[in-house]
Amino acid sequence: MKVGSEHYRSIWVEDGTVRIIDQTRLPHEFVVRTLDTLDEAAVAIRDMQVRGAPLIGATAAYGIAIAMRADASDAGLAGAVETLMATRPTAVNLRWALEDMAAHLREVAPSARAEAAIARAAAIADEDVAINTAIGVHGLAPIRDIAARKRGPVNVLTHCNAGWLATVDWGTATSPIYQAHQAGIPLHVWVDETRPRNQGAHLTAWEMASHGIPHTLIVDNAGGHLMQQGAVDLVIVGTDRTTAHGDVCNKIGTYLKALAAHDNGVPFYVALPSPTIDWRVRDGLAEIPIEERSGDEVSLVQGKLIDGSITRLRISPEATPAANPAFDVTPARFVTGLITERGIAPASAAGLAALFPDKAPQP
Amino acid sequence: MKVGSEHYRSIWVEDGTVRIIDQTRLPHEFVVRTLDTLDEAAVAIRDMQVRGAPLIGATAAYGIAIAMRADASDAGLAGAVETLMATRPTAVNLRWALEDMAAHLREVAPSARAEAAIARAAAIADEDVAINTAIGVHGLAPIRDIAARKRGPVNVLTHCNAGWLATVDWGTATSPIYQAHQAGIPLHVWVDETRPRNQGAHLTAWEMASHGIPHTLIVDNAGGHLMQQGAVDLVIVGTDRTTAHGDVCNKIGTYLKALAAHDNGVPFYVALPSPTIDWRVRDGLAEIPIEERSGDEVSLVQGKLIDGSITRLRISPEATPAANPAFDVTPARFVTGLITERGIAPASAAGLAALFPDKAPQP
Repeated sequence: MKVGSEHYRSIWVEDGTVRIIDQTRLPHEFVVRTLDTLDEAAVAIRDMQVRGAPLIGATAAYGIAIAMRADASDAGLAGAVETLMATRPTAVNLRWALEDMAAHLREVAPSARAEAAIARAAAIADEDVAINTAIGVHGLAPIRDIAARKRGPVNVLTHCNAGWLATVDWGTATSPIYQAHQAGIPLHVWVDETRPRNQGAHLTAWEMASHGIPHTLIVDNAGGHLMQQGAVDLVIVGTDRTTAHGDVCNKIGTYLKALAAHDNGVPFYVALPSPTIDWRVRDGLAEIPIEERSGDEVSLVQGKLIDGSITRLRISPEATPAANPAFDVTPARFVTGLITERGIAPASAAGLAALFPDKAPQP
Repeated sequence: MKVGSEHYRSIWVEDGTVRIIDQTRLPHEFVVRTLDTLDEAAVAIRDMQVRGAPLIGATAAYGIAIAMRADASDAGLAGAVETLMATRPTAVNLRWALEDMAAHLREVAPSARAEAAIARAAAIADEDVAINTAIGVHGLAPIRDIAARKRGPVNVLTHCNAGWLATVDWGTATSPIYQAHQAGIPLHVWVDETRPRNQGAHLTAWEMASHGIPHTLIVDNAGGHLMQQGAVDLVIVGTDRTTAHGDVCNKIGTYLKALAAHDNGVPFYVALPSPTIDWRVRDGLAEIPIEERSGDEVSLVQGKLIDGSITRLRISPEATPAANPAFDVTPARFVTGLITERGIAPASAAGLAALFPDKAPQP
C-alpha cells in the first residue's frame, strides 16, 4: 500500500536485490534494508524486522533464493532451509514456505536453481497478494452496505496489526478497509493500541497515516464504550488460527471486543486466508494452547524519547511479576462472519464446510 | 496499609506537620512530602501528588487547617477555600470537604480556628477510614465463601486503583482484599495495568507489593482470557459514580471486564462509599457525560528509564490523533453486587433503596 505517494509491498526485489521495511523501527523511522545474504534474511526473521505469518513465509522463500546465488548445491539448499527454519521454530507459514521451496528446487539442476528460486519466491509473494485482494473484495460488501445506510464515514474498529505489513500487501483485516477507501467510501478507523506489544499503535496507525486513511488511536479499554455510544459500525480483526467450527484464536484482547460487539449489536468480522483454518481443531478454547510470552513485554514499553532515540521504559514496580498470555480464543457464537478469499462464511462448522467442501472434514 | 513493615495512611500528621506520599513518583520512588503552606496543599492536589476522590477531600480539609495557622480571619478562610476549590474544579469530594470545613469553621472564633480545623480534618480522614473498613468487612464475605469452596488462593481481578492510595486507608475495591489477607485467606490479585494512565501498574501493583499480597500484573486485554481459563474467582472494582438504578461509571475498560465476567459466570462486584451514589441519575449510559481527556495520555507512556530517571515515551506516529474517553458505564445487569459501608446491595433501584431507604428517591 502507500507510504505517502509511493506504493510499497512489505518485501520486494529492486535492482536485483531483495528489500524489506525494518518494522522494528516503525512507526518512528522508515528504514528499508537490503537482504544480500542468507544470514541477513535469517536475522530479519529472527529479530522481527519482518513479522506476520504471510510475510515471514515470503521472506523465508526469498531467503532461499538469496542462498541459492551463493551455493546452489544440495548441501547449500539443505543448509539454507535449516538456517531459516531455526529463526522462528513455531511459525507454520515459515515451515510451509521452506518445504515448498525445497521440494520445488530439488527437481531443478543446481545451475538453474538461483533463477528458479527467485521466480518461486515471487510466485509465493504474488499468491499472498492475490488471496488478500480477494479477502478485501469480499469484505468490502458489508462496509458498502453500512455506507449506504448512514451519513458520514463508516467507523471500523480493528485490533492488533493484520495489515499489509503483516502480509506482502493489502493485509487481511485491513484489506476491506483499503478496498473501501479505494472505492471512495468515507471511512474512519479506530485503532486499538494492542498492549503489550502495541502493534496497533506502532504498525496499524502507521499504515493508516501513511496511506492517508482517517483514523484515531485508542487504548484497548476504550472500544466497549465507543460501541455503547454508537461510534463503531463494524469490527474487523485478523486471526492466527481458526477452528473447523469457527472459533477464532487471535491477539489477546480480541475476545473482549467480540463480547462488546455482541452486547451492542455491532457486526464482528474476522478476515483470514483459508490456510489459517485448522481443520483438525474444533473447540478452540479446549484445544488451542495459548503461548505465554515474557512478562517483560508487559512491564517494559517501547517508544521514542523526545530526543528521537528509541528505548524501553519500566511501568511497574521491580517486585511485581507480570503474566503475558499472547492470544485468546473468541468463540464462534460471537463472530458475525469469516471473510475468506472465497467469500464470507458463517462462523460454524456448516458455514465453513459449505465454502470449503474440498477441505472441511466429513461430518 | 503497609509499606514494607511500616503502616501508613496516604495523609497523616507527624510532629505537627501534614504529610503525604507523592504519588506521581510511584511506583519507582517512595517520596514523602510535607505540606507546610496553603500553596503546597494546593499544588499537591492540582499536580496529582494526591488523587482519588476521598484523598482529595481529606487533603483539601487539611489544606484549610494549614491555612488557618497562617491566617484564621474570615477573609483568610474564604481565600483558602477559593484557592483549593480551583485545583480540581470538577472533583465532587473536594467541594464537599471544603464546604464542610468552611461551614464548621465559620461558627468558630478566629482565635480557635487553627485547632478546630485540624480536628475537623482528622475527623474527615477518620470517617473515610471507617467507611472503607466497613466496605472491606462486607466484601470479605464473598471472598470467604469462595475460599471455603476451593483449594489454593482466591484469584481476584481488579482494574485501575481503587486502593488505599486513592483514599485515606484501606481503599474501596482493595479493602475486601486487605481484610481477607488479614484474615489469613490465601489470595492472589490480577492487576490490570489500566491504560492509558496505568494506575494499576503504577499504584495497585505497588500497593500489593508493598503490603506483601501475591499479585501479577497483566495488560487490560488479558482478563477475558484468564476468566475463560477459570483463573479468576471474582472481580472487584471501584466506581466514580453509581446511579440510583445500579449502573456503574468507572475507569475506561471496566465495562469490558464486566462483559467477560458475565460470559464466564464470574462474580463482578463494585465497592463504593455510599456518597458516590448519584440518586438523581437512573440510566448511566444516557445520563452520565464521559470526560474526554488529552490524547497525549494515549500517545505518550510514562515510566522509568534504565538510568532511573522518570520520563515519557511516544508509542505512535506523530501524524496519528488519539481519543481518550476516561470512563465507561457498566450497566447494572452485569453487576453481581454493590459493596457499600452498609452491606452488599443488588445492583438495582430496589436493591439500593432497600439498603438506603433514607437516601433513595421515592419510587
